[in-house]
Amino acid sequence: MKRPGRVPDSPFWVEPGDIDPAGGRLHLSPEESHHLLRVFRASAGTPFEAIDGSGLLYRCVLEETERGIAVGRVESKVEESGELPLELGLLVGLPDMAQVESILTHAIPLGATSIDFFGAERSSQGALSAQKLDRMERLSRSALKQSRRSRLPALRSSTGLGAALEGILEGGEKYLADPGGEEGLGLLGDLKKTGQSHGIIAIGPPGGFLEVELEQLRSRGFRAISLGPSRLSTSTATFALLTVVRNLLLIHRLPRVDKTGLSGYL
Amino acid sequence: MKRPGRVPDSPFWVEPGDIDPAGGRLHLSPEESHHLLRVFRASAGTPFEAIDGSGLLYRCVLEETERGIAVGRVESKVEESGELPLELGLLVGLPDMAQVESILTHAIPLGATSIDFFGAERSSQGALSAQKLDRMERLSRSALKQSRRSRLPALRSSTGLGAALEGILEGGEKYLADPGGEEGLGLLGDLKKTGQSHGIIAIGPPGGFLEVELEQLRSRGFRAISLGPSRLSTSTATFALLTVVRNLLLIHRLPRVDKTGLSGYL
Repeated sequence: MKRPGRVPDSPFWVEPGDIDPAGGRLHLSPEESHHLLRVFRASAGTPFEAIDGSGLLYRCVLEETERGIAVGRVESKVEESGELPLELGLLVGLPDMAQVESILTHAIPLGATSIDFFGAERSSQGALSAQKLDRMERLSRSALKQSRRSRLPALRSSTGLGAALEGILEGGEKYLADPGGEEGLGLLGDLKKTGQSHGIIAIGPPGGFLEVELEQLRSRGFRAISLGPSRLSTSTATFALLTVVRNLLLIHRLPRVDKTGLSGYL
Repeated sequence: MKRPGRVPDSPFWVEPGDIDPAGGRLHLSPEESHHLLRVFRASAGTPFEAIDGSGLLYRCVLEETERGIAVGRVESKVEESGELPLELGLLVGLPDMAQVESILTHAIPLGATSIDFFGAERSSQGALSAQKLDRMERLSRSALKQSRRSRLPALRSSTGLGAALEGILEGGEKYLADPGGEEGLGLLGDLKKTGQSHGIIAIGPPGGFLEVELEQLRSRGFRAISLGPSRLSTSTATFALLTVVRNLLLIHRLPRVDKTGLSGYL
């Protein structure tokens, strides 16, 4: 007896070019098709979801299978599905690859919209190679799908802090994690006044920022925040500052919440 | 030519029984002695620090070496070194071991004072075995040293939520992460009024809490908080809720900050 398939609980990735221009049908890549058809044993009529990283979630029904490729009929689209109404940019002094992967795994579900792993003065290597960046891009897509977000964060690896700062948007609330900075809670009052929807945080590499880098950040309007009396790794500091800034920016704006499919934690 | 040793930047672990009752001398375990004497090439007069997990940091100078064991003379003690003036208890529905390790690695530097990985209804296994708990205990000590904290969190693995709730302290601000809960920022107003120094957070296992568990938590005073429109893993949700509650509890109390040795991130 053939067991019935489960309905997939995470969206599938679809390349933007694989959605027909009228938006009525889409086809998945061979890899994603295999996942839908074999792992989930989908058959004609099985509902599934797809994202292309642009902020749209496509609710589909499996229409047919063409030589192992799943073709879906788009029933409806949800804009900005799973997205916060915030821009959250991360400038992270490049740590080792284990920390890079950990940051992507946790910071993407928490809503990061751009991440630049820049080669800081104390980073043990320069910018990430194209191959490594490509591997990180795949990890980002996977984190996006698992977290049911729909807009793929921009991923960069600048050669240094100067280049990283050229890539950030103007304006926004800017904070840097610095053990010698103010206590984290000092930032609360100011944020309540600004009502910004755009935060940029800068985290030092293992060993921390050099004074010249701190000065560069301060002159661009970054405010130094201490995250407490203990010593944090680059990744832990990233989670702590991201979460605090994200939460504080949300004080004045309720997120566009689409709770569909949010039955619990992964 | 013998290269000079580096001064160790993380404290060493010392068993409470290996500190002489008057507190003037201590000796490290064979493993920690090896690390100090071989990796850091310490010799008589080299300064180092030690913690025993009770909240005291011992500033020492290497006095002598007895058959491979480092003996330190205690020069001074620092109370609650690296500690927040907060109790932060975590009840985490047991996830897979990779997530357990990730939670210890990041939540201990962020100041967790107790962690119970309890067997929740949707956990794929019951409580952690004694062997696994023992391995987690070693990982906790390592996270404590790296983060320069001095008080070892209590580590437990209760068989279920009921048993976990029996183990928590009375009082405190209690929050549970629930995709169907209020938006996270709702909690801000209340905390400003209470000025509590004790927070307890509950995070569901992969798949989330069952309704009966949510009801059990609510009846014990836990307030359901949504962490946003995306789906988070148990570990990501733990970091997010811990950081927000930690920061909000700190609004009314400046931490006892000892910045010595905080030259940057790991």
